[in-house]
Amino acid sequence: MFSSDKVVYFDYNATAVPLPQTHRLNMDIVDRCFGNPSSPHQCGREAKDLLESSRLRIAQLLGVSPQEILFTSGGTEGNNTILRQLALQISPQHVITSQIEHPSILETCRVLEQLPQIEVTYLPVTENGVIDPEILLEAIRPDTCLISLMTVNNETGVIQPMEQLSSIAQAHEIPLHTDSVQGVGKIPISWAEWGVHYATATAHKWGGPKGIGLLYVKQGASLEGLITGGKQERGRRAGTENVMLIHDFAESLQWTINQQAAVSTRLQSFKKQIINQLETTNGFFINGQVDSCLPSTLNVGFEGVSAESLLISLDLDNIAVSTGAACSSGAIEASHVLLAMGLDRKKAKSCLRISMGWNTIQEEVNYLMERIQFHVNRLYQKNNARP
Amino acid sequence: MFSSDKVVYFDYNATAVPLPQTHRLNMDIVDRCFGNPSSPHQCGREAKDLLESSRLRIAQLLGVSPQEILFTSGGTEGNNTILRQLALQISPQHVITSQIEHPSILETCRVLEQLPQIEVTYLPVTENGVIDPEILLEAIRPDTCLISLMTVNNETGVIQPMEQLSSIAQAHEIPLHTDSVQGVGKIPISWAEWGVHYATATAHKWGGPKGIGLLYVKQGASLEGLITGGKQERGRRAGTENVMLIHDFAESLQWTINQQAAVSTRLQSFKKQIINQLETTNGFFINGQVDSCLPSTLNVGFEGVSAESLLISLDLDNIAVSTGAACSSGAIEASHVLLAMGLDRKKAKSCLRISMGWNTIQEEVNYLMERIQFHVNRLYQKNNARP
Repeated sequence: MFSSDKVVYFDYNATAVPLPQTHRLNMDIVDRCFGNPSSPHQCGREAKDLLESSRLRIAQLLGVSPQEILFTSGGTEGNNTILRQLALQISPQHVITSQIEHPSILETCRVLEQLPQIEVTYLPVTENGVIDPEILLEAIRPDTCLISLMTVNNETGVIQPMEQLSSIAQAHEIPLHTDSVQGVGKIPISWAEWGVHYATATAHKWGGPKGIGLLYVKQGASLEGLITGGKQERGRRAGTENVMLIHDFAESLQWTINQQAAVSTRLQSFKKQIINQLETTNGFFINGQVDSCLPSTLNVGFEGVSAESLLISLDLDNIAVSTGAACSSGAIEASHVLLAMGLDRKKAKSCLRISMGWNTIQEEVNYLMERIQFHVNRLYQKNNARP
Repeated sequence: MFSSDKVVYFDYNATAVPLPQTHRLNMDIVDRCFGNPSSPHQCGREAKDLLESSRLRIAQLLGVSPQEILFTSGGTEGNNTILRQLALQISPQHVITSQIEHPSILETCRVLEQLPQIEVTYLPVTENGVIDPEILLEAIRPDTCLISLMTVNNETGVIQPMEQLSSIAQAHEIPLHTDSVQGVGKIPISWAEWGVHYATATAHKWGGPKGIGLLYVKQGASLEGLITGGKQERGRRAGTENVMLIHDFAESLQWTINQQAAVSTRLQSFKKQIINQLETTNGFFINGQVDSCLPSTLNVGFEGVSAESLLISLDLDNIAVSTGAACSSGAIEASHVLLAMGLDRKKAKSCLRISMGWNTIQEEVNYLMERIQFHVNRLYQKNNARP
């Protein structure tokens, strides 16, 4: 039942509402499988069995082989693992990424390009927020050793043309990494068919637990581990495996992928309602072509209205939305993604991200639409009444 | 109640039996604090409040300030974070560590010393498994930029002379990192008084959850993050914070430190019983001076008996023990720690680690002693009967 006493949550892209399968652990499993999977006794073997059976389930759900899956502490570690391999190379390295990547890619590139051997090209995007394959083609150089381009943008929900981008990388025999953190569980993911070498995912974005993610490493692709020590994960990621969270990862992913089509249809309809309702609101515009975006994500602006004021007003009404990626907040700045799409700073600061998920219901959407219209009109009039 | 149907667990140094406080989460907390702590709305603020109140509790328990605590995914990530800062330096770097460190230090040093600017000295230890401060003093060079020495050895339980080691590092103004993974919760830890710059801990070694650890970074000590991206942890460790596990970390640490003296007294008495009982067993010897070891840990050998056979026999009796660090197992090799203490390969392969914890009871100790004596005598006779 809907009650506006509880928070009405429209910030699934920051982190999803936990699925009932998550954190509601079977105590029997905790007690039986607490061992260290590396230990050669019964407690170790039971933990190891749960680890490997979970890995197998996840691999089957994602259409890859279990040997191609490596568990990490989350998306940020995964992205750092791929990029920071380059820090240990001595020969010149050229990396291609895009201006709209997550901070875990962009900030890490900025650290790496301080090394004398590393150079990074940041591809621009179209005004619709798409990475143009032609632009990728032009940026490739003889010393390009890695391309990293996201599957879905976290702020706009724009789905990138992975097949085309990947075929260019393949034609030039350059390994392609894709940050699929916002894609897995929301759209069909085909790393193997796309032919990417590496991909990143994290469970909390679909309602699984925080603190557990994975790297897909295509069979035959090399990987220099970021976190070394014990021989866990076939020598590619050291540290005692987080078996309980990995089990939850598998449980929550299975539910999510089974329900993906049904949830998408429902959210797509909510999104259309929101657009239809807000279209007549003062200064309304949409970022990213609606057809090429996630059903769950809508990035909208209201020219002449401060998104920060709007966010605070909605927060007082118990509605949680975002003005951009959660990771860069604190002080609210203009989104680097919207700036890359050609918005000026002022227009970018009038934009709101509405992101929905498995637990979003019609009554919440109705309440959101009503409160946004109310506050936008109020803030717009207040601004325009000023001298 | 004791029942040998359940596994009788003597491998706490690999991972501890989970405390009742761990994983038995209050569902209200999961539902209320699932938000991303970086989000500037109510869900974010509630997660952030739980994060910061947990950090404060942990800081008070460890006698440091909350700003000096940085959460990681565990001990291995913490140790890698400290060492891998050097990979981004261009000037020559000399590092001092010891031959008995955990693989997350030793393997990472081996990766780093492949870089032309990095050189590593591995200090030997005494036959009692102690790092001699005099030997550290001799190893210091003008270009020494980091010393990393463990607080307690994981295989022998030998407690290292941290105060003396630290005062030497301080006198030479060289930052000292200590891997306290096997120390926290088991002996009083005084990072601030010792004057170390960095220290590593992980929750699952005292019965907290897996997948969450911390780095102590002394106020004023520099830290170049290993995992970059968002501005979490004051810019020093990116990635959505694992608020539930951090809350469990605080809960389990509080119980552990409150009970530390009582648990230690009980385990010390168990350890004495085991030594007294086994002393007369064929080929018995102890690794590490008993007085300078953790009350919970006993590393013993039986000359002429294969520890691997002994481990398998005990496993069939539902007893879990270890032949060394869990991380390096799979194939059972001679322990690098015991080799550094001067044992030959054959003698090292006759050694067993017995590690106890908060849930170890007298009946389990009795059963362990009886089964060890039985199997050692059986294996010894079998070996000596061979031509």
